[in-house]
Amino acid sequence: MEFIEKLKFNSDGLIPAIIQEENTGRILMMAWMNEASLKTTIETGKTHFWSRSRQKYWMKGESSGHTQAVRDIGFDCDGDTLLIQVEQTGAACHEGYKSCFFRSVAEEGSFRVTEEQLVNPDEVYSKP
Amino acid sequence: MEFIEKLKFNSDGLIPAIIQEENTGRILMMAWMNEASLKTTIETGKTHFWSRSRQKYWMKGESSGHTQAVRDIGFDCDGDTLLIQVEQTGAACHEGYKSCFFRSVAEEGSFRVTEEQLVNPDEVYSKP
Repeated sequence: MEFIEKLKFNSDGLIPAIIQEENTGRILMMAWMNEASLKTTIETGKTHFWSRSRQKYWMKGESSGHTQAVRDIGFDCDGDTLLIQVEQTGAACHEGYKSCFFRSVAEEGSFRVTEEQLVNPDEVYSKP
Repeated sequence: MEFIEKLKFNSDGLIPAIIQEENTGRILMMAWMNEASLKTTIETGKTHFWSRSRQKYWMKGESSGHTQAVRDIGFDCDGDTLLIQVEQTGAACHEGYKSCFFRSVAEEGSFRVTEEQLVNPDEVYSKP
């Protein structure tokens, strides 16, 4: 794939992927891909990542059902970051928020929650 | 600052910062901050980063004049990524595009340019 030659994976073979909700422009999450998970993402049309903490592949939504259908895959001038437009089913965040970015810095270095929790994470992730 | 305790900097002391244009939702770039550049960003209201390749601090726009005025600083559930809303002066990309993400994957793994070049980078960066 010609575009993959434009990409720079880091010393661990990974590249960060920013996930944006196509119809709202909202940033849902950021996670890491390697070349294999990127190719699987393209082939299946669903986002697949590499978990650095668990050292394994994962499809977004494999536990929760909250998958991401890929609409566009962009990459930056340096080729070291991906920007993927998706249609999100349910909540992107494992804490039950639509976006993982549900907190912002507030006065004097404190922070505030900026959105409503959509689902109870205990209910989503307690499936057998 | 209370929120900084929620953040996880990587083994190099860095955290990725996604930069989003506040009024359009467009993703402009992704770059890395350390704790000092994040604090400077908050204190000055202009984005400051740590360059991994040059091993130095830089303010976005210090050469080009294309600065970013900070409107909001969000962070994700894991505390390992920042999402910063800005008002962008001029072009964010050193290649003269508004956004560094000016290319997308096209048919059969090729790619296409998805936006117009705003400025000639030779003119912006040839200042003495």
